[in-house]
Amino acid sequence: MPLSFRTATRDDVPAIVSLLVDDPISASRDARPGLDYEAAFEAIDADPRNELIVVESDGEIVGTMQMTFIPGLSRRGGERAQVEGVRVSSKHRNQGIGGQMMKWAERRARERGCALVQLTSDKARVDAHRFYLSLGYEASHEGFKLLLS
Amino acid sequence: MPLSFRTATRDDVPAIVSLLVDDPISASRDARPGLDYEAAFEAIDADPRNELIVVESDGEIVGTMQMTFIPGLSRRGGERAQVEGVRVSSKHRNQGIGGQMMKWAERRARERGCALVQLTSDKARVDAHRFYLSLGYEASHEGFKLLLS
Repeated sequence: MPLSFRTATRDDVPAIVSLLVDDPISASRDARPGLDYEAAFEAIDADPRNELIVVESDGEIVGTMQMTFIPGLSRRGGERAQVEGVRVSSKHRNQGIGGQMMKWAERRARERGCALVQLTSDKARVDAHRFYLSLGYEASHEGFKLLLS
Repeated sequence: MPLSFRTATRDDVPAIVSLLVDDPISASRDARPGLDYEAAFEAIDADPRNELIVVESDGEIVGTMQMTFIPGLSRRGGERAQVEGVRVSSKHRNQGIGGQMMKWAERRARERGCALVQLTSDKARVDAHRFYLSLGYEASHEGFKLLLS
């Protein structure tokens, strides 16, 4: 399936939010359309170290992900490319779109000279873990979260 | 032990790099002093969503960590506070400094209105994992890395 990748525009926000909630794990925490999404989009869009990506097939948005490029003194001064919010629309899953997206993210990170690509995945997403391992990722770290309310 | 926290300056870079390599897990990947550290420091310092912190006790730098504030559409539009490169000098470990640092990071994240604090920790750091759990963190995610060379 030929896919095209581009930076999201403000008009894509509703489609992206739909993709974020089109998922059993995220639905409970992300399902409040219209909240602060406009402001959040503006913040991402204005930040040169954050790129919100949409993936299209035949003019339809079928996937999204966000890349954040984190400068740092560790890893010999190289930027880390972090991928968050990877989602493929439920009706387009198991067609290789996720694999193409992660390969695109890896190329984008290499093009920018990053030292590594990193991401975390909820421990309930067992299939996703096999998928990341198949792409050469190492499950080397524990991912900790502290929710602030 | 009374600690003071401040944003790092360029003059702190050698001390921070020493802390980063003063660790068996990081030493192999971080031990190349002088490489691109100046440029990496400038990148962090110029970025309003990255804060490199040094922790002092009696005028001596005893710890460091980096906070990155990641805007996003998930988590209802809230920023994530990510903590990377948490290090306490080997001769000051087991004195509660790490706990004070993580509490400071949590307060900084709350003050900024972040939705959560997140971090990953190498699976070999078993003691660190117990420490994060004791601070209320949940080990909910797998942390994947793909090294680019």
